[in-house]
Amino acid sequence: MDNRPIGVFDSGLGGLTTVKELTSILPNEDIIYFGDTSRVPYGQRSPETIKRYAHQDISFLKSKGVKMIVSACGTASSVLSFEDLDNLLFTGVITPTSIAATRITRTKKVGVIGTSATIKSGAFKKAICNLDPTIEVFSQACPLFVPLVENGFTQKGNQVAALVAEQYLLPLVEANIDTLILGCTHYPILSDIIASVMGTGVTLLNSGQEAARRCRNLLEQNDMLNNTKSVKTCEFYVSDTVEDFEQNALTVLAQPITGKVYQIDIEQY
Amino acid sequence: MDNRPIGVFDSGLGGLTTVKELTSILPNEDIIYFGDTSRVPYGQRSPETIKRYAHQDISFLKSKGVKMIVSACGTASSVLSFEDLDNLLFTGVITPTSIAATRITRTKKVGVIGTSATIKSGAFKKAICNLDPTIEVFSQACPLFVPLVENGFTQKGNQVAALVAEQYLLPLVEANIDTLILGCTHYPILSDIIASVMGTGVTLLNSGQEAARRCRNLLEQNDMLNNTKSVKTCEFYVSDTVEDFEQNALTVLAQPITGKVYQIDIEQY
Repeated sequence: MDNRPIGVFDSGLGGLTTVKELTSILPNEDIIYFGDTSRVPYGQRSPETIKRYAHQDISFLKSKGVKMIVSACGTASSVLSFEDLDNLLFTGVITPTSIAATRITRTKKVGVIGTSATIKSGAFKKAICNLDPTIEVFSQACPLFVPLVENGFTQKGNQVAALVAEQYLLPLVEANIDTLILGCTHYPILSDIIASVMGTGVTLLNSGQEAARRCRNLLEQNDMLNNTKSVKTCEFYVSDTVEDFEQNALTVLAQPITGKVYQIDIEQY
Repeated sequence: MDNRPIGVFDSGLGGLTTVKELTSILPNEDIIYFGDTSRVPYGQRSPETIKRYAHQDISFLKSKGVKMIVSACGTASSVLSFEDLDNLLFTGVITPTSIAATRITRTKKVGVIGTSATIKSGAFKKAICNLDPTIEVFSQACPLFVPLVENGFTQKGNQVAALVAEQYLLPLVEANIDTLILGCTHYPILSDIIASVMGTGVTLLNSGQEAARRCRNLLEQNDMLNNTKSVKTCEFYVSDTVEDFEQNALTVLAQPITGKVYQIDIEQY
């Protein structure tokens, strides 16, 4: 048993969808979340810069004494390597979501959408092909999806979001995929719009949800679940102001943050 | 006479539209440009974070021995105060563009568009009302314009950009403004789309162009123009990789960077 908290990080708000999954399937765990809100978004930066930022994010979580780290950021997950992690228990979104995709697909045609950096890295494609080389992977960068989410263009009938989604996703519809990886934790917030373009025959895979499940499995396998009975907490740390984070979280997730929020200087880590 | 270079900074690429104006009206000057490409965009961050970033940007330009600083970033200009600048010759975009607007408007109804942070600061509105309290100012944040530009949604017939522009700008059309300040240096790249929503009766004011003119006037008034005959240079410094900057500049401006580009670690300044 290990009663230290789980550390979760993301470039900004998107990882809160992963926290929601974690608190649902692991209600007995404390969580420390870091959102790099003063440097969001990561998705169009170079691999070098993303690695530097992810190392600082991980270094901060380590300083809080976490037992495991979850990279809820598709972009950071796509450039991190295991040697970055000093043997700390870790999951990103790439491996668990790729495993889920290989199990679900029947047609052996899988789509992947993510930020420019994630798609450019080819990380999902490589992971899926390593698991099953007979699967065809169709990748599409959707760089405008994060700004659409962060600016509230998320309602089902939103014309702008629908038009952008059509432009990005029609090639995947034409490729006859049956499984679509939402390779960025912002994207589940657009899932109604994405689903209506893709049609009913396509399963959408929420990468934050898969990372949360992988986190539970790893803690179970390593006998590291929390066995205390006390009330569990989520603490949130951000690199821009607390007020902006709380306000944006309310706009984007349509529910308030449940836990204390603190501002830190991430450049010091 | 003063033969040191002019320093220009922006959150990213947008300020290159200002550099273009400067090299056109001050062909005898050397320019040092800094684009904070690893932390772009500034427009949705808090005033505290924007100030911290702008101080680092200015500190870097000072280290290069510039004679004057041009803040080509509407967002940074809207939060900077004169005490930040240690008596160095300076212009942002707010004052020169506000002066131009008060001279041009006939109906005394002026529109301002900018990032969320710029509009929230009220900097343009305050500057215009100080110059002429009889002018009515109508402000509109357009947070999706920068991502649209950075992702190449800029051609005149682009449906997504047209739809977003209509949503943001129709209240300004209905307010019967005759002058519209493009309060962000990315926006001139969308000027065809903005103009077609606003109609022919509305003058669009390019804030980067006004800052460049103000820069020339300040150097002339202070007898600080460059009087050497040598070939003049532009040097570009960025906080993310050189390759990405060159590639994005080509996409966004449809022309290559003319000058050497170097990467620096802005967090050290």
